[in-house]
Amino acid sequence: MSFITKLVNAARENNSLLCIGLDPNPDLMPEVDTLEFNKAIIDATHDLVCAYKPNMAFYEALGIEGLTVLEKTVAHIPRDIPIIGDAKRGDIGNTAKAYAKALFSTLGFDAATVNPYLGFDSIEPFISYQDKGVFILCRTSNPSAVDFQNLHCNTGSSLYETVAHKANEWNIYGNIGLVVGATYPEELKKIRSICPEMCLLIPGIGAQGGDLASAVKYGVNARGEKAIINVSRQILYASKEKDFAEAARNTAERIRNQINSCLKAE
Amino acid sequence: MSFITKLVNAARENNSLLCIGLDPNPDLMPEVDTLEFNKAIIDATHDLVCAYKPNMAFYEALGIEGLTVLEKTVAHIPRDIPIIGDAKRGDIGNTAKAYAKALFSTLGFDAATVNPYLGFDSIEPFISYQDKGVFILCRTSNPSAVDFQNLHCNTGSSLYETVAHKANEWNIYGNIGLVVGATYPEELKKIRSICPEMCLLIPGIGAQGGDLASAVKYGVNARGEKAIINVSRQILYASKEKDFAEAARNTAERIRNQINSCLKAE
Repeated sequence: MSFITKLVNAARENNSLLCIGLDPNPDLMPEVDTLEFNKAIIDATHDLVCAYKPNMAFYEALGIEGLTVLEKTVAHIPRDIPIIGDAKRGDIGNTAKAYAKALFSTLGFDAATVNPYLGFDSIEPFISYQDKGVFILCRTSNPSAVDFQNLHCNTGSSLYETVAHKANEWNIYGNIGLVVGATYPEELKKIRSICPEMCLLIPGIGAQGGDLASAVKYGVNARGEKAIINVSRQILYASKEKDFAEAARNTAERIRNQINSCLKAE
Repeated sequence: MSFITKLVNAARENNSLLCIGLDPNPDLMPEVDTLEFNKAIIDATHDLVCAYKPNMAFYEALGIEGLTVLEKTVAHIPRDIPIIGDAKRGDIGNTAKAYAKALFSTLGFDAATVNPYLGFDSIEPFISYQDKGVFILCRTSNPSAVDFQNLHCNTGSSLYETVAHKANEWNIYGNIGLVVGATYPEELKKIRSICPEMCLLIPGIGAQGGDLASAVKYGVNARGEKAIINVSRQILYASKEKDFAEAARNTAERIRNQINSCLKAE
């Protein structure tokens, strides 16, 4: 089953566009084993999400033990919930092939995030896995995103819009999506108009301060689908006490319902 | 000791600007254990190089076993030879901090490569390790590099030149370098003129077809230093037979000497 089918199925089954970022950060976590933390979060929330998104950085920072935790976390996620490996990889073709193998074959993710700076031959080895989803960074959620992404180019538009247009052109297998931060609603609106049917992965809600209503309004396609609203810290660290999983569930449920209220209001 | 001091010392000691990319690729390697392969390459070449550069992709593709090989490879490299972790990471500040920890603290690299697409706050956590080197992708060696890097921007120059100018501006700790492909000598020349003293990491010689003479001519600073000429496949896979380490040494020595001939010709 392709990533996009798995995603839409999970979103409909759980009535949810919410994705939880599984980013275990020792500085913010309750005092509990990292794998047990992830398992408890998954057990408490898997009926409330359309996807999970572990970010590689938090596992790599823990060394080989972190990679073991990641493998076991992936194995613990119910098979009908797609997993997006947030890796933001980008390298020359020969090397990108090894990264695609690492993320899709070795780690078994259903989708991955990639960086567009190196151009098409750095993306091609990923999209060649036609059943996998490939989210290209377009307009990221961080303050410094403006440094380069908003530069106006001789394509007649900004760099991030140029990336969106290129993504359309490169989408020969229909498995490309884009990463667009909820912290920039105007940019999100523009990108959705350039790519009306593309799946958008939207981080930046919660700790990063993005507005949920505009993320939903401008993020979804005409049928109110194909937007993945990611929240990490606000859910994972809803409580630093023993009740962290329950607190995570309550927060996830509240956000899921807020998203659905926004959808109804449209 | 800072990365740049360690680099310049190793380059002078070994009379070499050559860096060997330690990228074990099962499709190209002789029939030998990956760690034994790396160790044999290092043993055969460590007096001929100014640095080694393992690319994370090739280890990640092998899963947890690959990471174990990487850790043991790093441990096997003589302590006076700097190691550049070729990771091309780029993520929002909070996550970039975890990546910097993974590469500099957990894996212990002396330097790392990073992607500029997310802007300054994605680079800052890396340069905050002031003794470490941080190579920002500027003009990469692959054919599709033109897709975005050569776009002309409202800064008055191309995207890659804008990245070079920003790198100067961001270089408050003096530990920023740039990645510039040998396959684009004109761009290399421009970048060297924008950043006359910055350390340049120059891949693309050998399998990728870059020209060594122009890489040396345009890559070095006014004293003939601060260029790191990286070669991976041409050296690692000089022979697929039992004599692979000897063949690697012979090729490395030949390239090192060619580089020095080019330097003398200047």
